[in-house]
Amino acid sequence: MKVTYQGETGAYSEMAVYKFFGPQTQPLPCKDFQSIFESVKTHTVPHGVVPIENSIEGSINQNYDLFLTYNLNICGEIAVKLAHVLITKPNTQLNDIKTIYSHPQALAQCRLYLEKHNWETIPAYDTAGAVKFIKEQNRPNAAAIASEKAADLYEMKIVARDIADNLSNYTRFLVLGIQDAQPTGDDKTSIIFSAKHAPGTLYHAIGEFASRNINLTRIESRPTKTTAWQYNFYIDFEGHRTEKRCTEALTALKTHATFVKILGSYPRVI
Amino acid sequence: MKVTYQGETGAYSEMAVYKFFGPQTQPLPCKDFQSIFESVKTHTVPHGVVPIENSIEGSINQNYDLFLTYNLNICGEIAVKLAHVLITKPNTQLNDIKTIYSHPQALAQCRLYLEKHNWETIPAYDTAGAVKFIKEQNRPNAAAIASEKAADLYEMKIVARDIADNLSNYTRFLVLGIQDAQPTGDDKTSIIFSAKHAPGTLYHAIGEFASRNINLTRIESRPTKTTAWQYNFYIDFEGHRTEKRCTEALTALKTHATFVKILGSYPRVI
Repeated sequence: MKVTYQGETGAYSEMAVYKFFGPQTQPLPCKDFQSIFESVKTHTVPHGVVPIENSIEGSINQNYDLFLTYNLNICGEIAVKLAHVLITKPNTQLNDIKTIYSHPQALAQCRLYLEKHNWETIPAYDTAGAVKFIKEQNRPNAAAIASEKAADLYEMKIVARDIADNLSNYTRFLVLGIQDAQPTGDDKTSIIFSAKHAPGTLYHAIGEFASRNINLTRIESRPTKTTAWQYNFYIDFEGHRTEKRCTEALTALKTHATFVKILGSYPRVI
Repeated sequence: MKVTYQGETGAYSEMAVYKFFGPQTQPLPCKDFQSIFESVKTHTVPHGVVPIENSIEGSINQNYDLFLTYNLNICGEIAVKLAHVLITKPNTQLNDIKTIYSHPQALAQCRLYLEKHNWETIPAYDTAGAVKFIKEQNRPNAAAIASEKAADLYEMKIVARDIADNLSNYTRFLVLGIQDAQPTGDDKTSIIFSAKHAPGTLYHAIGEFASRNINLTRIESRPTKTTAWQYNFYIDFEGHRTEKRCTEALTALKTHATFVKILGSYPRVI
């Protein structure tokens, strides 16, 4: 099974791929998130995995927007614990470090640790990519923030562990496919809708779930991009879209919405 | 009147300062958003201005988080239209360009235009700062994306206009102070709250506004950062916090929330 993800070998996204699909999977790295959606849309690969939110930094907005643009389904979710370590070339000592490379979110997550040192920080497009870069570019005065697995893969040295401000740091990933998943009895459904422009519409919209005892696990809003200060809402709720209470709520939602797009139902993990 | 903002002279944030406080204001540039909150908290300056959301790219998450951390008030809002142009040194031609510098949000907003060219894009911490950089570093093969005003200020050349994917591109800024604003009859109030952990709590919480005909203009959620997959909600609603219907809604909200923080009331602009 081939599965696309963004980043280099050793990236947290690649860990998500293995966690969901198992060790026999063939993860295919991509440079950016849109390429993942494109590869699934064109049937180049059956599945892709994208990060959707981090428990500290919040939503990955670009992926929310891509779910609106592409007509693909969500067929699974994965939570990966992020354990950042500081990685250098084998002969580099902590005192040699002048520059830190990593993904902007990882740099932000290690802010307090980085503030204790007078290091320059440089954003990279991926955590594991930053490790690869300082190895290939032979940078004895640089370090990367990435996972322990990335350090091992590139045969580099870990000079500090537990460097994140908050060690309870998880990223939630979604699995893309051309179909969603069958009901398991413990599922979630993700949808996008645009509330009609009238006072209280959002209240009445989410009331269709509350009145049927359907718990919302997440609500996010994104600009429509067509009219300033108008938003689309992204909701995750408990239950499979084929359950009676869910089909009823989704039908009723349409009376409050200008559009409703069902992204899919999938087994609940978090 | 001294007012802090993030960026360099010519930044969109500086335009917001002038738009709100008038031409006699003294805008003071800061390197980052936290410094703005700090400068107002320590009474170094009476006011600061921060971007909170863009009509295309969405929320500026870091500022949402800083409003939770700092006990400051919002006393105004400003909308600034972003009109990106491509800026070079006076002798650079379009064909000479190899590298584009700008703030990541500005680069994202000009994605379709940039995709037509085979240019490398490099993130900068500010649009006007990117113009200043290519001028001071004497880069004949570089261009910056920023405002026309930034091109004028640094005496640089505009080589292309209307380069954004969506020309209806606005950023909403908030004015920070140690007090909020007096009622004007057309106001908005911003609050943060954490809904109690029970099914339907968000529905009942926003129902306290809907049942009093108080329109919500914005709802945003951010991770609590203490417990994974728990969120604080940020709500903007029509009305001043001293109006009877608003005080009643805010009192009633407390029965559904573990905390409620009122950020302030201010004259409505959008």
